[in-house]
Amino acid sequence: MNPEKLKIAVLGGTGNIGEGMVLRLALQNLMAGGVKNEVIIGSRSPETAEEAAKEALRELENCGFDTSGTTITGNSNLEAAKAADIIILTIRFTHVEPLLKEIREALEGKIVVTPVVPMVKEGPLFEYRPPAEGSAAQAIKERVPESTKVVAAFHNIAAGKLKDIVQCKAVHDSVVCSDDEEAKKVVFELVRHMGCLKPLDGGPLKHANTIESLTPLLINLAKLNGMKDLGINFS
Amino acid sequence: MNPEKLKIAVLGGTGNIGEGMVLRLALQNLMAGGVKNEVIIGSRSPETAEEAAKEALRELENCGFDTSGTTITGNSNLEAAKAADIIILTIRFTHVEPLLKEIREALEGKIVVTPVVPMVKEGPLFEYRPPAEGSAAQAIKERVPESTKVVAAFHNIAAGKLKDIVQCKAVHDSVVCSDDEEAKKVVFELVRHMGCLKPLDGGPLKHANTIESLTPLLINLAKLNGMKDLGINFS
Repeated sequence: MNPEKLKIAVLGGTGNIGEGMVLRLALQNLMAGGVKNEVIIGSRSPETAEEAAKEALRELENCGFDTSGTTITGNSNLEAAKAADIIILTIRFTHVEPLLKEIREALEGKIVVTPVVPMVKEGPLFEYRPPAEGSAAQAIKERVPESTKVVAAFHNIAAGKLKDIVQCKAVHDSVVCSDDEEAKKVVFELVRHMGCLKPLDGGPLKHANTIESLTPLLINLAKLNGMKDLGINFS
Repeated sequence: MNPEKLKIAVLGGTGNIGEGMVLRLALQNLMAGGVKNEVIIGSRSPETAEEAAKEALRELENCGFDTSGTTITGNSNLEAAKAADIIILTIRFTHVEPLLKEIREALEGKIVVTPVVPMVKEGPLFEYRPPAEGSAAQAIKERVPESTKVVAAFHNIAAGKLKDIVQCKAVHDSVVCSDDEEAKKVVFELVRHMGCLKPLDGGPLKHANTIESLTPLLINLAKLNGMKDLGINFS
């Protein structure tokens, strides 16, 4: 892993959260102290991923950024994972198991970042439904090679705020959990330079369940109290 | 229930959270629009409760407040519950079952407020350990008369901030869950006038588990990130 230029795959990068994540990660190249990186969008269809990569570059240009130093490409989930040092899973929990089977060979020694939240809609509100392992993060940990470092992060930021790269400078807290202190530090730096998030240490991975459960809470609070795109702050 | 003058029992009112709760509730009498009330501290020992009531009045006077219109008394848990319209359980989860057995007869038709959080310390960090019912709130609901309205509130405010009635004006969010909309409204008003909290609707009681689980998260984040007496804000 070259700390000067990280290769980051955003699997499910054509989805709602994925799109914002790609833009924010690409923007870090333009920031003083930002992690220099190369973003690879992964999708089931390489063509969809390539199109999303072009669209992200267009979006950055439309917002007035110079993208000459920015690399965003698209590929299949497996090829994106192979090319990357850090793999972010911006996917639904139900897609986790088949995806990890497909890309498992590409994960040896790498960092897998999970913002995945297992939840269901019951009536008008969402409920957290963790798997038997305790959380999506722990379920993922059991399905990757032993050398893979799993970091839970980026759960509690609304897609709307993440994508709004020009307007949204609000700094919400993002709690990061991992059993690997080195990997946690790398992800801390990524979070710190997203432009809208402040990282907080949430301890080992087994504490990820509480962080994951905040996502349905945020959606429910927004709905019940007439608010929108909620984030969270601890003070 | 007389909405002009609420009688509020704080059971476990001699504990850390209870002390701050008593002070904040008594202070509402001095606030424009504050809920006028009478506070009854409940404890296993009536003498300890009476002493705590005198101590709370002295504390208010020491802070410069005119306590002539303020009533704080102490009694046994059962007598305090009998005298009250609203009963707040500022107790540990392990004490819930025996206490509810003792005071059950006094709860018919009343509002029981639970800030109770079932948690255990594992190594340096706390973990949320909900009972089989799903949350302390749901366990309490199953142990009170059917006519009793259970409201979950006041979980996520640090004792230090609650007790610091002069300095601490910071407004943190407090999520309120209940299956009874009328009771929820009454507690919303109590929260709104605590002087340090803003109420948010958290939906029905079955959603209390996520709110309860925030308490060990706040304690852990404070410990892991060198912070103190954390509260939470959604925006």
